[in-house]
Amino acid sequence: MKRPRKLGRGVALVGVGMSKFGMFRDRDSKDLFAEAFRNMIASVDKGADPQDIDALYVGNFSNDFFIHQAHWGPIVSDLIGHVPKPATRTEGACASSALALREGIFAIASGFYDMVLVGGVEEMSKRSTEEVAEGLALATAPYEGRAAFTFPGVFGAVATAYFDRYGASREHLMNVTIKSHNNAALNPRAQIKATIRSMMESKRRRASEKGLPEPTWQDEKEFLRDQDANPVVAWPMHLFDCCPISDGASCALLVGEELARRFTDAPLYVVGMGQGSGSGFHAADDLTTFQATKYAAEEAYSMSGLKPEDVQFSEVHDCFSIAELIHMEDLGFFKPGQAYKAVEEGATRRDGSKPINTSGGLKCKGHPVGATGVAQLMEVWEQLRGEAGERQLPIKGLRIGAAHNLGGTGGTCTFTIFERR
Amino acid sequence: MKRPRKLGRGVALVGVGMSKFGMFRDRDSKDLFAEAFRNMIASVDKGADPQDIDALYVGNFSNDFFIHQAHWGPIVSDLIGHVPKPATRTEGACASSALALREGIFAIASGFYDMVLVGGVEEMSKRSTEEVAEGLALATAPYEGRAAFTFPGVFGAVATAYFDRYGASREHLMNVTIKSHNNAALNPRAQIKATIRSMMESKRRRASEKGLPEPTWQDEKEFLRDQDANPVVAWPMHLFDCCPISDGASCALLVGEELARRFTDAPLYVVGMGQGSGSGFHAADDLTTFQATKYAAEEAYSMSGLKPEDVQFSEVHDCFSIAELIHMEDLGFFKPGQAYKAVEEGATRRDGSKPINTSGGLKCKGHPVGATGVAQLMEVWEQLRGEAGERQLPIKGLRIGAAHNLGGTGGTCTFTIFERR
Repeated sequence: MKRPRKLGRGVALVGVGMSKFGMFRDRDSKDLFAEAFRNMIASVDKGADPQDIDALYVGNFSNDFFIHQAHWGPIVSDLIGHVPKPATRTEGACASSALALREGIFAIASGFYDMVLVGGVEEMSKRSTEEVAEGLALATAPYEGRAAFTFPGVFGAVATAYFDRYGASREHLMNVTIKSHNNAALNPRAQIKATIRSMMESKRRRASEKGLPEPTWQDEKEFLRDQDANPVVAWPMHLFDCCPISDGASCALLVGEELARRFTDAPLYVVGMGQGSGSGFHAADDLTTFQATKYAAEEAYSMSGLKPEDVQFSEVHDCFSIAELIHMEDLGFFKPGQAYKAVEEGATRRDGSKPINTSGGLKCKGHPVGATGVAQLMEVWEQLRGEAGERQLPIKGLRIGAAHNLGGTGGTCTFTIFERR
Repeated sequence: MKRPRKLGRGVALVGVGMSKFGMFRDRDSKDLFAEAFRNMIASVDKGADPQDIDALYVGNFSNDFFIHQAHWGPIVSDLIGHVPKPATRTEGACASSALALREGIFAIASGFYDMVLVGGVEEMSKRSTEEVAEGLALATAPYEGRAAFTFPGVFGAVATAYFDRYGASREHLMNVTIKSHNNAALNPRAQIKATIRSMMESKRRRASEKGLPEPTWQDEKEFLRDQDANPVVAWPMHLFDCCPISDGASCALLVGEELARRFTDAPLYVVGMGQGSGSGFHAADDLTTFQATKYAAEEAYSMSGLKPEDVQFSEVHDCFSIAELIHMEDLGFFKPGQAYKAVEEGATRRDGSKPINTSGGLKCKGHPVGATGVAQLMEVWEQLRGEAGERQLPIKGLRIGAAHNLGGTGGTCTFTIFERR
């Protein structure tokens, strides 16, 4: 970075919406985006007229692969009655809609537009699990996917390296998973709305109903150690270390900062933003850090003048449990090799010093990849506006929240910091 | 449009480069992009240090489909030594890199960055012609491609509607083709560097060498009427109405306006830019106009304060001959239904009143779809700087040139106007 980052015009977030996330045999990308759009419009306190939207950006990873349809800009534009105004698709793997967010910010900050819609969509579940793995591997660096190094394998290697370097173990990853499930159980929008304990109970009940011997797990970790309950995917990544396959859409409304209070008395302001790129793991000297996340954070902290400790809570890209640990270190929330200890001590819980993924994260909220970047804003929006219900953070003077999104094997990372003033 | 378009900070173009365009069995997207990048850097008069590039945008339509690899932002970033700085892929079908250009402009105009690389790439020829048609159909609106309404068929229907409404015929389309070939013969970068006359000659020579009867075509139109020489693809689109299948890459360098003269004494300034979206032909009342092009033009003219008559020459998206005619009308260069007459009278030739596609256009320069939007800048750059060699326009006070790019069946259109000051 040759100079500090700044925007010539401030940008504010005045509405956010999501579709349901899940595996839907009977719903398509258009249907899901329409739901997210309706929810977003409904979230604008003083109302917004869709006719005032100047341009839209939609993140989509590869509906090209998943449902044989590309060019989602104009499809979404047509869907919401936006034609003939501009519509652009951005793609950065699982960070596709974080890139839409960024371009929406630039478009307004440039002075060209006043109101921009940003969102994302992905429709994955009509493909088999094997095909989803193949499709997602299109996002790896060329030397990875073609060598059959798909995502669970990649993050399995990352976890192994982290364990080796810092003395962590599977037991520490379990803490991440348990926390995510505890948060998601309180999130009505989560795809998996259940604590590990409640899942244990329902498995016991089902065994009992079938007259089978009831499992004897004493606690969540015993459950997660059980190879039948939590089978290995790519060691040490087990089923509960991995986010689910999801369909879904997300949507947010951005306006020039000076216009924000026409739409709500509680807008969120974009105070920091950053993006980085990475070469992929075939070229990495160190598997325990994502250089793209570090660069994204450097830009965002530069623009905001904030430090990691000023970020009161954050959504952090947890496609796999190990990713949450490493990204928290790369974002400066914890020192290298310390995140797993902090998680064990409860620092990232809702009542901890640095609550992370209060939404339940990708692990439980779901991860329709192109929709995730903007969907992360939902939690930041609700928390900073005091609308997170049972998940509401008990922090006095809650003011600064952030979202971190990863695409591919670290190829694309973004970090965006919002402030409630 | 609710208010005139403007940018808070001006943006200038200080370098442009292309790879060779063609069908290359032995070259891949990375190789092609590297060539475009090297040529771009070499085009910067006073030199540019790639380390000063703050961010990059790369347009790619669907290497997802063509070569089973998505997420081209970080691949290009890695290729040019740009990691860990940001890299974003934009997709708008055949207008993918025009969207990269636009986002590069916004990123600088916002004040966030000072120097941004924009480019595009596509690798199509490793697929069969049938597979290319299938892949391109991913860019149509959902009701089109799935009904087997692929691009030659779509533009065949457009041509039929235009003929019916305005009394044009295939003979008029031939004028477009002949002009494109005449220009391309003078463009060392064209994929098809041949006039129709020279192609007639070589076919005659080949017949003679084989001892076959020599064809007796008297002129270009007789050649183009010959079903053997110019077979039908989707009536009235014949082979010579269609652009070729191409591999290739393109690259351009943008900087803040106030920095431009550090890099060259002859920068081009972005004085107008616009983008529009369309619903596709299944929803069109009128097949003889592209509403997305009209909207893009409206934005660009609004920003620039210019009128269509002020644009001294333009590259216009001619994926099919009929597209060039209709877009020229939508851009305001000619009145509806008049373009085919103007072409017949020579208005769009290099010595005409409104030279169009002096590069040879997509028809002859080639159309690696994701690369096209930025590749169009090559011609604008050379013409406005007086570097177009034998193609150089004989216009006194040549100052304003433009590029128009179309994606899908009118789903995405852009128009960008440049000025040499």
